[in-house]
Amino acid sequence: MIYFDYAATTPVAKDIAEGYCQLVEKYFYNSESLYNQGIEVNRLQEKSRGNLAAMLNVASEELIFTSGGSEANNMALKGIALKYRNRGRHIISSAVEHSSIMATLEYLETYFDFEITYLPVDKGGKIDPAQLENAIREDTILVSLMHVNNEVGAINPLDAIKAIVARHPKCFLHVDMVQSLAKLPCDLTGIDLASFSAHKLHGVKGSGLLYRRKGVNLEPLIHGGNQEFGLRAGTHNAPANIILAKTLKNALARQKQHLLHTAKLKEHFLKQISTIEDVKIISSDDALPSIVSIAMVGYKPEVILHELEASGLLISTKSACSTRNPGVSRVIEQLGLANEIASSAFRISFSLETSLEDVATLAKALSQIKEKIRKSR
Amino acid sequence: MIYFDYAATTPVAKDIAEGYCQLVEKYFYNSESLYNQGIEVNRLQEKSRGNLAAMLNVASEELIFTSGGSEANNMALKGIALKYRNRGRHIISSAVEHSSIMATLEYLETYFDFEITYLPVDKGGKIDPAQLENAIREDTILVSLMHVNNEVGAINPLDAIKAIVARHPKCFLHVDMVQSLAKLPCDLTGIDLASFSAHKLHGVKGSGLLYRRKGVNLEPLIHGGNQEFGLRAGTHNAPANIILAKTLKNALARQKQHLLHTAKLKEHFLKQISTIEDVKIISSDDALPSIVSIAMVGYKPEVILHELEASGLLISTKSACSTRNPGVSRVIEQLGLANEIASSAFRISFSLETSLEDVATLAKALSQIKEKIRKSR
Repeated sequence: MIYFDYAATTPVAKDIAEGYCQLVEKYFYNSESLYNQGIEVNRLQEKSRGNLAAMLNVASEELIFTSGGSEANNMALKGIALKYRNRGRHIISSAVEHSSIMATLEYLETYFDFEITYLPVDKGGKIDPAQLENAIREDTILVSLMHVNNEVGAINPLDAIKAIVARHPKCFLHVDMVQSLAKLPCDLTGIDLASFSAHKLHGVKGSGLLYRRKGVNLEPLIHGGNQEFGLRAGTHNAPANIILAKTLKNALARQKQHLLHTAKLKEHFLKQISTIEDVKIISSDDALPSIVSIAMVGYKPEVILHELEASGLLISTKSACSTRNPGVSRVIEQLGLANEIASSAFRISFSLETSLEDVATLAKALSQIKEKIRKSR
Repeated sequence: MIYFDYAATTPVAKDIAEGYCQLVEKYFYNSESLYNQGIEVNRLQEKSRGNLAAMLNVASEELIFTSGGSEANNMALKGIALKYRNRGRHIISSAVEHSSIMATLEYLETYFDFEITYLPVDKGGKIDPAQLENAIREDTILVSLMHVNNEVGAINPLDAIKAIVARHPKCFLHVDMVQSLAKLPCDLTGIDLASFSAHKLHGVKGSGLLYRRKGVNLEPLIHGGNQEFGLRAGTHNAPANIILAKTLKNALARQKQHLLHTAKLKEHFLKQISTIEDVKIISSDDALPSIVSIAMVGYKPEVILHELEASGLLISTKSACSTRNPGVSRVIEQLGLANEIASSAFRISFSLETSLEDVATLAKALSQIKEKIRKSR
């Protein structure tokens, strides 16, 4: 079996799984307990938070542990919207955000009368900074944009986005960095809120992080106890929170190598499939190389997926958070592609575990599958 | 070290930790993925949901996996309040609920103009059904009450509560069962929503469950993907969700034994401490026997806690979710006790792992500590 779905989730690294399991058994104490065992769990958790903060170049108290990226996205958007709704009720986002952003924005429209401007994207999936500039109004309190798109790998022009939002001091900037953390440099300067997830980095599931710049107020998403500076209630999942620092450390140590290696994989892969008739490359050249969206025009992505699976090759039709939605991916729909291309799109994602042989195998399999289906028609 | 803080959290059982860790390594695939490995993770998760449903005597689709009890409580209350707010904006709860209920109710007051009636409790911590009956109005859409109080073990008269709410078909009933599940029979008949947590049952942290009766609509707390019937977005923490069925199965198999054993422990313990001057028993005779609140009048609970800790005995001053709040516990304050008793209260909680010798050791230590402090004054 060869796995090409690292953008959906990643295998838990051996050392992370082992370290985590030790923590699960040994450090079961409630981190809020006042005796030494509880204090020790708390200390390890705060040490992890401190290490994460150092790696992200922020302050410890700017990091909030969550149960994952979707929770972090919900918390950021609802948290800001509720606290600052009297300042204005306009939010700017884009048409290709993750479902946890899109559905949260709809919620804010329905329940809190927010007005949302969805910026369009270019053929590669990126927003145009000039359009962001034009969209910002007096009552815009938040811009929420993803750093890297999870379906096509588009890298948004983060520096330009930061510069624009910085000129509007009453407007906050949230960046969904779930797909970019430890894949690209993630400079949090000029960003007010950022969302992260562990399971995209060979970490455990049920573990995420929200960066919230000092001085930014948030209404909690999960109300209750005083955990996480009073911003996220519930008994700490201390083992997950403690192991997150090591997860990020490992991923950051491999960041450059990951980028170089997956760029090589993408280059080889695109070259190898270039000879297959009717294959269209959707991801642009400047996209994150580990996420490659392609289409085999006229062929249903589900059919390709299952044919590849029969050869032991695992890919994805779209975001795992949307696989149960029928039809063309909401993201792909926004790219202005011909319908025959959009409706045939699927996603391949690489990691350091992927070899050049693996992508050659995939390219060859795609060619054979195409031939097989064509003949059977 | 002897642990007397099972109401705060419990050690993860050996077989649960081992099973969980195997799942973490092996079943890392995204449960939403369309290839067989993802489908297999999904199948195991749905099998767990089915087993949980069978044990709780409900339908599979009535159970929603969450990241814990606090999330389940938030989801239940906000979910109902937002969906049914046009029916009425009055909620009834009690003055001794968990912080995740209290803070959520305050949120609904602030942001959605809800009016909350907090029922008072008797000296043992129980509400009076007659007062519930009187409090229900035309615009009451929800009654949220805990089954067992986490600080004093009070068992609310659930059958009477159910019967009253049943006479008001426009009003839903939510029960926080975090402390009662697998300690007492938990019959979900007549209940619309119920919250559960794994880590109180020798399960893993970051794992909870919300029961939602068929036909009850909920606005999600975490918006996004279609996971959990569209009610709880985010990549599944499949390993935690899968192991939850075994966690509950083990706990239910020991439920009767747990009740009998902890009743014996409580009886012996209370007898042994009855000779200590100035010790007052706060928990009533009909409380859950595994949670015992007592006071050593005139002695600060933090001092007792640390003195006991020095003898290797771990207890709690109040709910772990409130340890960082100064002063008398919010729950204890509601019991109508003299201030000298309320300000000296602390909590001891037992499990099947606790032996008669353990409680004898604790009683003896309490007596010695009292003597020691008294002399040093």
